[in-house]
Amino acid sequence: MGKTQKNVGRHIVADLWGCNSEYLDDVSIVQEFMNNAARAANATVLNSVFHTFLPHGVSGAVIIAESHLAIHTWSELCLASIDIYTCGDKADPWKAFNYLKDAFQSKKHTVTELKRGIFEADENFDLQKNYKEQISG
Amino acid sequence: MGKTQKNVGRHIVADLWGCNSEYLDDVSIVQEFMNNAARAANATVLNSVFHTFLPHGVSGAVIIAESHLAIHTWSELCLASIDIYTCGDKADPWKAFNYLKDAFQSKKHTVTELKRGIFEADENFDLQKNYKEQISG
Repeated sequence: MGKTQKNVGRHIVADLWGCNSEYLDDVSIVQEFMNNAARAANATVLNSVFHTFLPHGVSGAVIIAESHLAIHTWSELCLASIDIYTCGDKADPWKAFNYLKDAFQSKKHTVTELKRGIFEADENFDLQKNYKEQISG
Repeated sequence: MGKTQKNVGRHIVADLWGCNSEYLDDVSIVQEFMNNAARAANATVLNSVFHTFLPHGVSGAVIIAESHLAIHTWSELCLASIDIYTCGDKADPWKAFNYLKDAFQSKKHTVTELKRGIFEADENFDLQKNYKEQISG
């Protein structure tokens, strides 16, 4: 049987520059945008945690059924540094990225997609089944 | 005055394979290891959120004063997928990585360090000061 490369998730790493700095210091707005982003990606929000820093900045993470979203903001730099990590085919992390880019009114950004948990498996490998012995070596 | 490349943070992206699968399904152990990892990095834990999945897996995030740690586990794959994002010079994310690698008894791993929030600034730029106009364009 042929082997193929699989991965458990997709992780978008993005730094959004030139954002609306008022949004970046308002934890209620940041939290709302992050939850909206999860929904835009067709992900299921389970729980979240946010923290406001003084004099500037918000940090937060949203646990979704498909993994997580995280954000750190530097309003003094107009920067939102975001991570969107999704597993499975249901959620599309790029939809969350596009939502956040527009919501924070970002003027420029860097973004890359990482494959997470890459492994070799049989072509018909099913992540839902227990193949521990196959790749735990 | 000379320009130089600065970044707001360091982000370690790591997938730990061959972990002790019993640890990966125990949310109290995963949470303890993640909090220990933050302390090993000399970071300050502010808050955290964890979720247990059925039949397998734990997801969680720890907000630290220096940014965050996140984890997703697949005990059926003996895999812990972790992120350690720290800002400033006080915390060393590699110390958290080394702690987690050993704590989960990982047999092999992939790991890379990303620079987050990269920008050009004057050599004497101080992130604590307000240089919004310098890089918000």
